[in-house]
Amino acid sequence: MTLADDLLARNRAYAQQSFRGSRPVRPARALAIVACMDSRMDMFAMLGLEQGDAHVLRNAGGVVTDDVIRSLAISQRILDTRGIVLVHHTDCGMQKITDDSFRDELEADTGLRPSFAIESFRDPYEHVRQSITRLHHSPFLARKDEIVGFVYDVETGLLNLVS
Amino acid sequence: MTLADDLLARNRAYAQQSFRGSRPVRPARALAIVACMDSRMDMFAMLGLEQGDAHVLRNAGGVVTDDVIRSLAISQRILDTRGIVLVHHTDCGMQKITDDSFRDELEADTGLRPSFAIESFRDPYEHVRQSITRLHHSPFLARKDEIVGFVYDVETGLLNLVS
Repeated sequence: MTLADDLLARNRAYAQQSFRGSRPVRPARALAIVACMDSRMDMFAMLGLEQGDAHVLRNAGGVVTDDVIRSLAISQRILDTRGIVLVHHTDCGMQKITDDSFRDELEADTGLRPSFAIESFRDPYEHVRQSITRLHHSPFLARKDEIVGFVYDVETGLLNLVS
Repeated sequence: MTLADDLLARNRAYAQQSFRGSRPVRPARALAIVACMDSRMDMFAMLGLEQGDAHVLRNAGGVVTDDVIRSLAISQRILDTRGIVLVHHTDCGMQKITDDSFRDELEADTGLRPSFAIESFRDPYEHVRQSITRLHHSPFLARKDEIVGFVYDVETGLLNLVS
């Protein structure tokens, strides 16, 4: 069975058994989540949210990049979200590399150094605080009064609030 | 109850009732999903996947930006994923704006025009094809032989394969 056929079969089962029906395009809880791409975070499940509740933005590290600012500007200005929830986690792949080492690897393998930062980091708590600072400095976000950040423990399934 | 307290309470229930325990950092199915941030897509549920199966990258539109290339390069080269699954959808907020109109709105509201593209589009099927073309043109991805694209129908919960 091909990858496409496998996913189509799994999706048909979802549509028949679990799909909750049509929802409005505007998130019901007016939330935007910005999280790492890590496979161990099943985002709605681990936050107790449902289909239709929140926008979900994810990349390597849950970093606040220009792409995240672009997405949050659209989320807030077109689709009326207010709160921003950052979710980083323990045991992140981004802690295992440095920008220099990964740029060297890309250059060695392809002949090109990328024009973008890799955004490696060491401490997920510090990285959440850095991400919140980036949000506060962006001119394009309309609402910054409800921003919360968490570190998810991949061993226990529990969130820790970053203060 | 504050937003943080609400999410912490929901998460504690998840950790007690639904968390499946520790999983390796490398995705079990060696997949990376690139999808729109839309709130109506509960990604693992709708693809029949589980905690630990796949990286999940999401932004406004599911666009293949530099941030997605950065994340996929890390996903493939550090965490050994192979397949890439694109998931766009019907009734997307990105179809309701143009780059010009949204840049004008940002400039009118803040005095600044953004230095990045908004990445609006009209047809989700064409947009998946454009995204696949961008992936094939990136020098930084190590594996491009298993790329599949879908459009998710937000009214039925069903995926449609883009060919």
